[in-house]
Amino acid sequence: MSRIDGRTPQQLRPVTIERGWSKHAEGSVLVSFGDTKVLCTASVTEGVPRWRKGSGEGWVTAEYAMLPRATNTRGDRESVKGRIGGRTHEISRLIGRSLRAVIDYKALGENTVVLDCDVLQADGGTRTAAITGAYVALADAIAWAQDKKLIKPGRKPLTGSVSAVSVGIVGGVPLLDLRYEEDVRADTDMNVVCTGDGRFVEVQGTAEAEPFAREELDTLLDLAAAGCTELAALQRRALDTITEK
Amino acid sequence: MSRIDGRTPQQLRPVTIERGWSKHAEGSVLVSFGDTKVLCTASVTEGVPRWRKGSGEGWVTAEYAMLPRATNTRGDRESVKGRIGGRTHEISRLIGRSLRAVIDYKALGENTVVLDCDVLQADGGTRTAAITGAYVALADAIAWAQDKKLIKPGRKPLTGSVSAVSVGIVGGVPLLDLRYEEDVRADTDMNVVCTGDGRFVEVQGTAEAEPFAREELDTLLDLAAAGCTELAALQRRALDTITEK
Amino acid sequence: MSRIDGRTPQQLRPVTIERGWSKHAEGSVLVSFGDTKVLCTASVTEGVPRWRKGSGEGWVTAEYAMLPRATNTRGDRESVKGRIGGRTHEISRLIGRSLRAVIDYKALGENTVVLDCDVLQADGGTRTAAITGAYVALADAIAWAQDKKLIKPGRKPLTGSVSAVSVGIVGGVPLLDLRYEEDVRADTDMNVVCTGDGRFVEVQGTAEAEPFAREELDTLLDLAAAGCTELAALQRRALDTITEK
Amino acid sequence: MSRIDGRTPQQLRPVTIERGWSKHAEGSVLVSFGDTKVLCTASVTEGVPRWRKGSGEGWVTAEYAMLPRATNTRGDRESVKGRIGGRTHEISRLIGRSLRAVIDYKALGENTVVLDCDVLQADGGTRTAAITGAYVALADAIAWAQDKKLIKPGRKPLTGSVSAVSVGIVGGVPLLDLRYEEDVRADTDMNVVCTGDGRFVEVQGTAEAEPFAREELDTLLDLAAAGCTELAALQRRALDTITEK
Amino acid sequence: MSRIDGRTPQQLRPVTIERGWSKHAEGSVLVSFGDTKVLCTASVTEGVPRWRKGSGEGWVTAEYAMLPRATNTRGDRESVKGRIGGRTHEISRLIGRSLRAVIDYKALGENTVVLDCDVLQADGGTRTAAITGAYVALADAIAWAQDKKLIKPGRKPLTGSVSAVSVGIVGGVPLLDLRYEEDVRADTDMNVVCTGDGRFVEVQGTAEAEPFAREELDTLLDLAAAGCTELAALQRRALDTITEK
Amino acid sequence: MSRIDGRTPQQLRPVTIERGWSKHAEGSVLVSFGDTKVLCTASVTEGVPRWRKGSGEGWVTAEYAMLPRATNTRGDRESVKGRIGGRTHEISRLIGRSLRAVIDYKALGENTVVLDCDVLQADGGTRTAAITGAYVALADAIAWAQDKKLIKPGRKPLTGSVSAVSVGIVGGVPLLDLRYEEDVRADTDMNVVCTGDGRFVEVQGTAEAEPFAREELDTLLDLAAAGCTELAALQRRALDTITEK
Repeated sequence: MSRIDGRTPQQLRPVTIERGWSKHAEGSVLVSFGDTKVLCTASVTEGVPRWRKGSGEGWVTAEYAMLPRATNTRGDRESVKGRIGGRTHEISRLIGRSLRAVIDYKALGENTVVLDCDVLQADGGTRTAAITGAYVALADAIAWAQDKKLIKPGRKPLTGSVSAVSVGIVGGVPLLDLRYEEDVRADTDMNVVCTGDGRFVEVQGTAEAEPFAREELDTLLDLAAAGCTELAALQRRALDTITEK
Repeated sequence: MSRIDGRTPQQLRPVTIERGWSKHAEGSVLVSFGDTKVLCTASVTEGVPRWRKGSGEGWVTAEYAMLPRATNTRGDRESVKGRIGGRTHEISRLIGRSLRAVIDYKALGENTVVLDCDVLQADGGTRTAAITGAYVALADAIAWAQDKKLIKPGRKPLTGSVSAVSVGIVGGVPLLDLRYEEDVRADTDMNVVCTGDGRFVEVQGTAEAEPFAREELDTLLDLAAAGCTELAALQRRALDTITEK
Repeated sequence: MSRIDGRTPQQLRPVTIERGWSKHAEGSVLVSFGDTKVLCTASVTEGVPRWRKGSGEGWVTAEYAMLPRATNTRGDRESVKGRIGGRTHEISRLIGRSLRAVIDYKALGENTVVLDCDVLQADGGTRTAAITGAYVALADAIAWAQDKKLIKPGRKPLTGSVSAVSVGIVGGVPLLDLRYEEDVRADTDMNVVCTGDGRFVEVQGTAEAEPFAREELDTLLDLAAAGCTELAALQRRALDTITEK
Repeated sequence: MSRIDGRTPQQLRPVTIERGWSKHAEGSVLVSFGDTKVLCTASVTEGVPRWRKGSGEGWVTAEYAMLPRATNTRGDRESVKGRIGGRTHEISRLIGRSLRAVIDYKALGENTVVLDCDVLQADGGTRTAAITGAYVALADAIAWAQDKKLIKPGRKPLTGSVSAVSVGIVGGVPLLDLRYEEDVRADTDMNVVCTGDGRFVEVQGTAEAEPFAREELDTLLDLAAAGCTELAALQRRALDTITEK
Repeated sequence: MSRIDGRTPQQLRPVTIERGWSKHAEGSVLVSFGDTKVLCTASVTEGVPRWRKGSGEGWVTAEYAMLPRATNTRGDRESVKGRIGGRTHEISRLIGRSLRAVIDYKALGENTVVLDCDVLQADGGTRTAAITGAYVALADAIAWAQDKKLIKPGRKPLTGSVSAVSVGIVGGVPLLDLRYEEDVRADTDMNVVCTGDGRFVEVQGTAEAEPFAREELDTLLDLAAAGCTELAALQRRALDTITEK
Repeated sequence: MSRIDGRTPQQLRPVTIERGWSKHAEGSVLVSFGDTKVLCTASVTEGVPRWRKGSGEGWVTAEYAMLPRATNTRGDRESVKGRIGGRTHEISRLIGRSLRAVIDYKALGENTVVLDCDVLQADGGTRTAAITGAYVALADAIAWAQDKKLIKPGRKPLTGSVSAVSVGIVGGVPLLDLRYEEDVRADTDMNVVCTGDGRFVEVQGTAEAEPFAREELDTLLDLAAAGCTELAALQRRALDTITEK
């Protein structure tokens, strides 16, 4: 059985990671997983939120949002509605936790990095693309901060890399990296965040239609772990490219 | 190694499920997992939200909240702050999805059930206690609706039962049903929602400190599945008790 | 003429005052006036709001709220609506003023007590039950603060006790402590807050249907004063009970 | 003992009631109680809020607000803060209830009158001036609606008149119609709303400092009733004046 | 062709500038352009917003609002809606910029003046009346601050005067100072703010119906500049009058 | 004197207009004026807002926003703050008015077009770039609607084209199309919106520092009109390119 775009069940969509997209941000990446495009910027500021002052430790946080017409039908702006929806809150928190998993706060020192992940075009997997791109933006921002001596020489705030991918069971078949049309048809849908060395940071599986058995869960975890390994390699390759800004 | 309250790693806290707590609600349960106490009410109304009208299908949704002094230090009310926080949104959505997993919308007909889960006292595991209690309140509310002929005779809107438990790795040891003091010390924290027949509805695992390996994940899933089996039995026992209201 | 629940016009509903309901709060009371149940917690924090700093005086404030299904039909959460309604505001302010009437700010020192009164089940008289219960929670919280030496030895922040009751004219008959069904049928409705020594702290009378004459007002005040005297005795009895926490 | 402005304890401040202040509103009054000036407009619209449709009955509601510099120091705008404060809510509700006390909803028919009471300058007693002025604006608006045949011929939506005044005990002396400087020094403060025939619509007494005894309450009620009688006469006189608009 | 109120195209409506309207504000003006009436108060406080502290420079800002029934049909209060509309924001910003154009921040010293412009009755040109009146209130407030020595002797914070007027093309004819009925029929509508010496501070022209040609724009600018010159003379005359407060 | 980027005073920055940027929107353009990049999408829906139903006329509206790190330092999200700022409101309204100036509502029929202009990177002139790009997106969206027969055959909803540019006086020299560094140094700043046939739709000039004389205003208008003529040619060229979507 072939997928709508001809991929095999174990195949990622074409992934691009374009560094240095923005002239202002300390780190910025336009990441695409197929037609899903997310602009990830990393903003570094000296100092930390009040509750962390004097700790000698830094902070990393994230905000996710969608442009109103990133999707097939226009969604109302959350700024106009005057409140942030549950889905936005949930994803922002997921991205923040995922990236904090590879941060050594002591090494970062009392600096804050805010990751903004704005979905310019959505076709499924926006949160996993956001995490994958945000890691690269974060790496660039930390390099910038090291260069500016905001971070003490020799300190390595990044303890590893992090990437994410979605998996799901569609028509009984476990699939990697779902497009929107696959996502809406999935019985089970899981987002998995892994470190570059293959360990898990987040596992979020949801039975959209039918509850799932343990074997299905195991298969999906295998599929996701393999996908994250591929993404980690793409992140490394992107970061190895020399960019001058 | 024994736990702060003397439990074994595989042991649940004392669980109580008190049905018919409220005189107004169609279903109401005061559930406790140790010192965690959640009041779950199920409110039935005829009709469905606008986007579902005319579909012949019902709807189930949930709202979670904490009283300001449910916790060790007082938290500001979200009504006073004028906005619902991300954590509240996230848990409300989780409870709603979990209960919808055992609902046959067609059999429910165009009726809506709202589950309100208000934490009166918190000591870890509030979301899992809420799901476990809300299922029982939902079952009572559906029985009420069948009795009132809001649901057509012979229709069974509940396709199974659902319960939830937390698991985590604390000091290297996998533990079932974490208390607050254990939760804050956990390296990994997972909330698992299962159906009464042992399948998974939600799996949400988070590396609080260290990313976790696949074997740790497997151990935690085993532990959680066993805990949910026990909770399902307690739910059955509670529902078998005759209550007159 | 006997009332729906068989009481005489001058009779209170059964009142229970359960101290130490919550394990976290410095004072906590589950108070019931018949089927009306309110959880009152008193939270003590060192320090006072900014506008009072350096005055050497303390502060006491209150917040009132209802669980969504405390009432016969479910009400929307104020946190979800994003704003607090006028009724909630009004009652929170009334509770705060009533308790401040028996506080010696100087003796309290620069400490703050927040009283949270959350209605778990409503059947008329929620604000009067809240005041009556909150006084007991406040007394326990102050005892706790004295024990912890937050309050200077010998200082007595409480200058008296305070309790409250509703009265109203239903079908021409003045009644004490209205249930919901009586309240909606009342021509005149009054909430009266008294100190333990029989003086008035608040008198709020409203002509729901017909304006009322001076004699009616006088009768209602007599009835309320007698009810408050009874409640003050119940508060004393509850506080005399030894509780270990 | 004479008062700061030379009045006797039983004396009202100079009261002016200027009808037809606004060219747009169906009824409009600039009322002043000494330096307190409130602009009261009554807006008539055909139809009623949704919950009242088809009842054949009308509705009357009120909104109270203060200009930012109506007071001695500038207050932040509630529109800028994004929320209405408790005091504003409380007073708006009081004004609405007071005026509804003299309305026959059936005679009004399915029409709505909104009373806007905006304090242009404050010097104590803004809520009582607002009620007193709003009644006159309401009477003009109803006359307008009768003239426009929105109200059926022969129907009399007004069942009486309503006015309000504050009373308080300052330095042991009961005083009528407190100015701001008196109000802040009052031990007890009461707002009383009466009908033109001398019955009570609202009685709201608050012990600002010391709880008050029954005799004090009785004295204050006498004082307020006399003040309201005077105000009712001033309202009648104002309405007897022919205005052409 | 004569206008609805008999004016020539180049003629202002009757303008009144009543100083010292409020007993509390440091400067206060009730300004009327025909039936448009705006209450402008200027509130002086020592100190400046945080971002300006230590600069030695002052700040001037403005807030504009309309009473709900200032207009022909009642508008909802922005405080009740919980948000300020775009039009209100836009006009508040315009008034603030216009008055800052004649302020020497250094001479003002670290003091803040807030100008509140509340429209009591609207008949077109509310923003231009507000600017014209606010200037006079500002001048009075600055004189007050000089008198109180908040401003150093010899310093002149006002570098000139500022006034504003609307112009538009109605039925092909360029008109000065549009009333509401003219405004809604205008093809082009322009608000112009000038200094007393005839220079421009703001020019805001909008094609309501047809885009306008350069010659039309030139004619409107001539008309507006002449109108502002007249208004500047009226402002001077008002300020020359001795007021005792 | 040459400008920071070597342009002459009368020279636009390099302008690019990339059509069909988004796969979902009916019209979409990524427009850049130098380093200023704005994503403009046009969303077509059948039907109009309630107040326009049954009129046979369509509606066009716009929303403008900035990504948090579009600027040199990160700005807080308006969705997080829970309110839209005055600047955002003002610009959204300007864009909407500008595009409505070239719309024949009757020809559009009861359809709505929403233009979303999201600034991805800011370097001055974001509102003028947004208008210029939004026109092209609007033209594409209308062509789509004609193709889908939402618009009746033969009807031409667009009565012309519209573009916009900023001008300002920097160091005494009138400059076209200001970059951010020029904008902050400008004494006078003007945004001008013109139709393709050289007439004016909006003229918004502000004295940032010194009030400006009539001759300066005239020079700026000449400069802006010439700039708009150039932009209109670029818009035509972009629309002449055949795109297949």
